[in-house]
Amino acid sequence: MKELPQEWDEEFDVVVIGSGFAGLAAAIEARYAGASVSILEKMKYCGGNSLISDGLVAAACSVFQRKHKIQDSPELMQDDMVKAGLGLNHPDLVRTLAEKSKEALQWSMDCIGVEYLDRVDQLGGHSVPRTLTVKGHSSFHTGAFLFRKMMGVVKRLGIEVRTQMYLEKLLKDENGGIRGVQIRQGYVFPESESGTVTFLQVKKGVVLATGGFSSDVDFRSTQDPRLTADVESTNRKAATAEALIEALRIGATPLQLSWIQLGPWASPDEKGSGVGSSFASVSTFPYGIIIAPKTGRRFVKESADRKIRADAILKTGRPSIGITDARGAKPGKHMLDRCLKKKVLKAFHNLEDLSGFYKIPSEELQNTIKKFNSYVKNKRDMEFGKTILTDAQPLIHPPFYAIRLWPKVHHTMGGIQINKNAQVIGLNKQPIKQLYAAGEVTGGIHGACRLGSCAIIDCLVFGRIAGMNAAL
Amino acid sequence: MKELPQEWDEEFDVVVIGSGFAGLAAAIEARYAGASVSILEKMKYCGGNSLISDGLVAAACSVFQRKHKIQDSPELMQDDMVKAGLGLNHPDLVRTLAEKSKEALQWSMDCIGVEYLDRVDQLGGHSVPRTLTVKGHSSFHTGAFLFRKMMGVVKRLGIEVRTQMYLEKLLKDENGGIRGVQIRQGYVFPESESGTVTFLQVKKGVVLATGGFSSDVDFRSTQDPRLTADVESTNRKAATAEALIEALRIGATPLQLSWIQLGPWASPDEKGSGVGSSFASVSTFPYGIIIAPKTGRRFVKESADRKIRADAILKTGRPSIGITDARGAKPGKHMLDRCLKKKVLKAFHNLEDLSGFYKIPSEELQNTIKKFNSYVKNKRDMEFGKTILTDAQPLIHPPFYAIRLWPKVHHTMGGIQINKNAQVIGLNKQPIKQLYAAGEVTGGIHGACRLGSCAIIDCLVFGRIAGMNAAL
Repeated sequence: MKELPQEWDEEFDVVVIGSGFAGLAAAIEARYAGASVSILEKMKYCGGNSLISDGLVAAACSVFQRKHKIQDSPELMQDDMVKAGLGLNHPDLVRTLAEKSKEALQWSMDCIGVEYLDRVDQLGGHSVPRTLTVKGHSSFHTGAFLFRKMMGVVKRLGIEVRTQMYLEKLLKDENGGIRGVQIRQGYVFPESESGTVTFLQVKKGVVLATGGFSSDVDFRSTQDPRLTADVESTNRKAATAEALIEALRIGATPLQLSWIQLGPWASPDEKGSGVGSSFASVSTFPYGIIIAPKTGRRFVKESADRKIRADAILKTGRPSIGITDARGAKPGKHMLDRCLKKKVLKAFHNLEDLSGFYKIPSEELQNTIKKFNSYVKNKRDMEFGKTILTDAQPLIHPPFYAIRLWPKVHHTMGGIQINKNAQVIGLNKQPIKQLYAAGEVTGGIHGACRLGSCAIIDCLVFGRIAGMNAAL
Repeated sequence: MKELPQEWDEEFDVVVIGSGFAGLAAAIEARYAGASVSILEKMKYCGGNSLISDGLVAAACSVFQRKHKIQDSPELMQDDMVKAGLGLNHPDLVRTLAEKSKEALQWSMDCIGVEYLDRVDQLGGHSVPRTLTVKGHSSFHTGAFLFRKMMGVVKRLGIEVRTQMYLEKLLKDENGGIRGVQIRQGYVFPESESGTVTFLQVKKGVVLATGGFSSDVDFRSTQDPRLTADVESTNRKAATAEALIEALRIGATPLQLSWIQLGPWASPDEKGSGVGSSFASVSTFPYGIIIAPKTGRRFVKESADRKIRADAILKTGRPSIGITDARGAKPGKHMLDRCLKKKVLKAFHNLEDLSGFYKIPSEELQNTIKKFNSYVKNKRDMEFGKTILTDAQPLIHPPFYAIRLWPKVHHTMGGIQINKNAQVIGLNKQPIKQLYAAGEVTGGIHGACRLGSCAIIDCLVFGRIAGMNAAL
């Protein structure tokens, strides 16, 4: 049709849009299959959100589980994901992920050279320990180490990586198949008119691996109007929806776009995920309480799932205060100094000072804590049903540590529809020829709620499938 | 572009697709504004789901509320809708609905000639009584009376209504505005190739009023994979997604498509909504219990919202059994004979017979009921927190009435994005010129969950707006 150029500027067998885990996995597999491959990244630097990922990788029946004598199965992993996803997961996609997770993990070690800590963790929502941690030099963002290893392989294989290349159009021929891409070369985010237009012909396939849209205020607030610019994101700025929108424009089927995950453990007093969030996850939520500063009262079960907690905090209209004491702070003690230095966490000698600082009605707060302490003693929360851990103790030992909490947009579960071959499905229910997708730009794998440590493995499994099939 | 025909077969100022409440309201207003109007209905008969609607109409500050001294406000109605919608409602749309509800109600009386019962009901989720019931000859489906009155006005105004006219394409010109429609005339549902193609030029606007997609197994199960063909719908067969998909194809923005409402009060032993559902709503759920036949145990708070109950029943994997006794059946006694005759409800002299019939472990059921009866006596459900009504009594008086329950797809909250002028919003965030939409085909008004009695008023308010603006 009209959109195809008179002449192409260049041609490749496979073009991969996006340079995070999914894109790199796709490019590597396509190259192994003998295709000429180009990776296009819209930003000046590669990696997207993968660079700031926590490096946690879930896999069923891994060698690590075998070594640690942990019984697991793809079926159990699938069940866990479907339970968290409230049954909205596309069965064939989640099954594929669970079945191929072991192989993808092994691939990351054997072919990419990643190392993992000799430890298998059981994260919330997983029935057994099955989460591995990429080995790195620091305990934060170890996903960057996985990224660097993958980038090393990309370079070794001679795959071309170009930055500041913005996907403006997916170009269809008269039969509806993708024949190429219209790119703005020299693009400067977020200026949509920057750079110059170039046309790349694609002989075998395009892989969309452009990530989610957590940082796209317009698009996300259309799907969930609560998520205005007042709500921050744990994602990098570049996590926007242009490529997803372009896929919709050419007829890809949208899927579950309004399921957007918020992190309830986020603080407005630091950027991104941050160390305060980590402290809140291991200390404040499990051992302390969350109150509304206006009333001084609790309003949500602190052990409820991410969605329930985040929704409840948002509903109060302003940041909540999470409070724990010296004993409750122990599980997060290695982060304590950094939190205090960053001022995301504040220490108070007594509850009066804490109330005064946050303008909380002091008597109400005292009363709230007195009640909570009695629940801890009786091992039963009579108000909100919070799980009282066996080692939980009443909040009486100063210093009291307080953190402001306001949810941040963390992950977009929805996206475009793919099948288990990573082919993008059109509105006519048929695959769009030569178009593949993997990672957060796709929908249906995680359903209503993504379990922790299932994002990287999603990128690896479906990125590889997309790359292999795009090269056919 | 290519899609426009060499020659048009006919021309109109305004073409309305769909002949339910929203479509008729739009057609009437467009005609009042002086436009030539054609209503196109894909089925042999007009009315769609509006014909089987319950005729309940919510409005804030109606003359009826004034007469009955009920304090209300558009803000309160908006708050109620947003609360039910979990905050996902588009604020400008829900505000418009609440603000214009009084006027639309008045219009239905003054201009359409509808009469309402002199009674204002308070439905679940509404803070005050604000629901009116269309006066009819029977107490079921009184929406049909509203439909007939509207159809009378349509005829009186000389608006042309054509049936078996299937929207195949919305035709855009090179500037992206809608110039006409490609229709299959003589279409026989659901044969997509039936009828002959005709091209209607549209000089002012097209109004999409094609309803929801509750009966479209393919489309709904893409958005919510639980909703396979095994789940029935309360809707008519024609509630399918073709027109919505066509709107997406030409670049309309999809919105919250995966929020699909299930009716937990539905029985697999009757078609559609049915009388058994009505009985369950007023007797079984408020006064009785719901158990899983496999275990003989309760598994959900019977007074929870529609979504929680429906999700819980689906999760058990097979129809639940709702049980009440002679006293609990009283609120539904006027429906009792019809329910028993239709065999959707069954009466048992004792619990042994009931257990035997449904193959429920008898001792477990006895035990479940004994426990439940003790909660009723103590006015507190210690297991699931069910609201024990003040007039609730232990389940001890035979006959025991049992109904099989399995959710049915009832309403699709999502659809295409419109603004408060009922203009359809494209993926580029701009209105698509000359394209309007109203009613269930649109998304964002009801958010995650539509409150009862808010569907007809939605059709009237936005149907009118769409018709007025399409005629400009």
